[in-house]
Amino acid sequence: MPTLVMKFGGTSVANLDRIARAAKRVAVEVANGYDVIVIVSAMSGKTNELVGWVDETSPLYDAREYDAIVSSGENVTAGLMALRLQEMDIPARSWQGWQVPLKTNSSHSSARIEEIPTDNINEKFGEGMRVAVVAGFQGISPEGRITTLGRGGSDTTAVAFAAAFDAERCDIYTDVDGVYTTDPRITSKARKLDKIAFEEMLELASLGAKVLQTRSVELAMRYKVRLRVLSSFEEPSDSAGTLVCDEEEIMESNVVAGVAYSRDEAKMTLISVADRPGIAAAIFGPLSEAGVNVDMIVQNISEEGRTDMTFSCPVDQVLRARKAVEDAKSNGSINFHDLVTDDGVAKVSVVGIGMRSHAGVAAQMFKALHDEGINIKVITTSEIKISVLIDRKYMELAVQALHDVFKLEQAAESGRR
Amino acid sequence: MPTLVMKFGGTSVANLDRIARAAKRVAVEVANGYDVIVIVSAMSGKTNELVGWVDETSPLYDAREYDAIVSSGENVTAGLMALRLQEMDIPARSWQGWQVPLKTNSSHSSARIEEIPTDNINEKFGEGMRVAVVAGFQGISPEGRITTLGRGGSDTTAVAFAAAFDAERCDIYTDVDGVYTTDPRITSKARKLDKIAFEEMLELASLGAKVLQTRSVELAMRYKVRLRVLSSFEEPSDSAGTLVCDEEEIMESNVVAGVAYSRDEAKMTLISVADRPGIAAAIFGPLSEAGVNVDMIVQNISEEGRTDMTFSCPVDQVLRARKAVEDAKSNGSINFHDLVTDDGVAKVSVVGIGMRSHAGVAAQMFKALHDEGINIKVITTSEIKISVLIDRKYMELAVQALHDVFKLEQAAESGRR
Repeated sequence: MPTLVMKFGGTSVANLDRIARAAKRVAVEVANGYDVIVIVSAMSGKTNELVGWVDETSPLYDAREYDAIVSSGENVTAGLMALRLQEMDIPARSWQGWQVPLKTNSSHSSARIEEIPTDNINEKFGEGMRVAVVAGFQGISPEGRITTLGRGGSDTTAVAFAAAFDAERCDIYTDVDGVYTTDPRITSKARKLDKIAFEEMLELASLGAKVLQTRSVELAMRYKVRLRVLSSFEEPSDSAGTLVCDEEEIMESNVVAGVAYSRDEAKMTLISVADRPGIAAAIFGPLSEAGVNVDMIVQNISEEGRTDMTFSCPVDQVLRARKAVEDAKSNGSINFHDLVTDDGVAKVSVVGIGMRSHAGVAAQMFKALHDEGINIKVITTSEIKISVLIDRKYMELAVQALHDVFKLEQAAESGRR
Repeated sequence: MPTLVMKFGGTSVANLDRIARAAKRVAVEVANGYDVIVIVSAMSGKTNELVGWVDETSPLYDAREYDAIVSSGENVTAGLMALRLQEMDIPARSWQGWQVPLKTNSSHSSARIEEIPTDNINEKFGEGMRVAVVAGFQGISPEGRITTLGRGGSDTTAVAFAAAFDAERCDIYTDVDGVYTTDPRITSKARKLDKIAFEEMLELASLGAKVLQTRSVELAMRYKVRLRVLSSFEEPSDSAGTLVCDEEEIMESNVVAGVAYSRDEAKMTLISVADRPGIAAAIFGPLSEAGVNVDMIVQNISEEGRTDMTFSCPVDQVLRARKAVEDAKSNGSINFHDLVTDDGVAKVSVVGIGMRSHAGVAAQMFKALHDEGINIKVITTSEIKISVLIDRKYMELAVQALHDVFKLEQAAESGRR
């Protein structure tokens, strides 16, 4: 029988009623003829409770004990889901990470999956079991200790199982009904996408559309796992949710898939830096060590032998960034005239694989912003993304204008997106 | 280094403060030079919450899933205890049942321990670890699934570890400070025993002094594990708690160790049963099948060929018992004239290994009750116990009178009990 992976997040299994509702979804797919692997998170709130206890007991905790403790929430859900399915006369059983065994490396609390042997579970499918309920987020290290994959790791568990079992699809049930062209809170014209390419999803996820753990999308892209995001609170249908898939599956699409934003950015400029080979490393090394997440970087040529260096970072890291840069100046590793900070900026980006073959997207974007009287402070581009920094007060306006100019409220004419 | 097993029950690890307090006790024993194996229960209330979810999800649950779910509470406590000890600079780590592995049979929810390999934990002791924190109550079946030992199974886990690791002692920390000569709520003269023999403890436990799981005492007796019961809420001292040990360790003792009682008993008499070989089986077989816990049994000879048969059971099983007996009469497997029920009785027992060598204990007991005007309805005896059924209203009076007549408020003259 073909295999399907279904993953239910914390809000989808928050209590016994929701577990029962999720079990009904599973029953539908069993009736459709699938052998189903269900990946479950902890009931919402449970993991936070456990993390709180760990933090209170030991602020600098041993990550091996942390993992042993926080993984317990998923085990409870897995057992309850198996029982619920059995009550519906569906042969089901639970697996904890070490029982599969889902083998990881020893990087506790952020372990990487190394191998998922399929024989245990396939043997049970062969004996008539229809659903394997697997506790998400957890695995076992070479030393035989429990590991966890980092917060949100159940998405990654699901994709890894889909890859290992060559599943037809991996359905991620969550509390949103799919991926949108932009945040519906900013424009009511925002439209749910039927399909989106892996690369686009990666850019949108890291830009703030927090639907899927980035790592799970990377993994899905590498193993070409068709990933569907859908809500566990709406009636299921074939067109439900958004399919994240290889771009070849998307026949025709808008040039731009979506508009993303990040509200609380800051722009910092080092004026008249003494330019020399290695100067970038001398600046960004100390910033990295100070834990500053530098995002955009632009270097302008100014007078001879000197340059201006501009970068952006989250606004709550400005103090840390300033100290790192000034310490570097004090100890003589860099030299500049002035440090100018603008902590009132936001980032707006347009993303789309269609850009690769369509020139003029950037020009269209800049003109649209200019027409609204929005000044662009910094620009960076990649093959499928253009990002700008603008005054924060114009952020909503910019998103709305870009959504309009790229006609994102309409699906592409072939109707495939 | 010598090994000590310390077990903390649910109320002793009910929250982070209590876990910290328990950890301090462990630290004292580490400082005393012991390698310590700590067995922990779930934080109090947690197991009941999980059991509630299982019952609500699936009334006739799959015991394998039940075990996987309800065992998770102990895992959390084990990790938190290990972290707390690490914070006190004591090298410690947690073990879940399957990691030891504590091997059991496949009788889920009431599994029997088959083997506890010591090499894993001893290897870590050899590397400098001082405390192994083990999740109680759980093990792993030959099929690789999680099993549990039944409610209160953490006591059994502790004793089994003490036997496997040849521990010097097994300390059971609980919410009472030891085993008493009788219930202090009935007489203020009740005195904590410093020592009690395994056999006595078994008789007292099954009679209602619910301090230790009966199975754990049986196991301790078989492997001669010295078992100490003490409170985690009092300051530790050498004389703290009660040592449950081999009778050879008790040099001199009172003839009677304690007075136990069971308040809610019923007495049922089958009048004029047609006597024949196998009649007892014909009566008590159906009662057992109906789930009636028959305790005392007395058979009186009456007229020729007929007999009276009296037994006791918990008062809330009277209806079930009556139905079982009457059904047996209807289908002709037994025959009797009348069934008389007295549901207003209580059982009072005196227990002591000293009875074996002292005659006259029974006579002393019956006289003491007679002096108080208490009528004895049924008597049963074993080598180290005499039990009587009396009217329930006299129960407290009987316990007080027996406690006085056997001078239980005073320790034996050698001072060893």
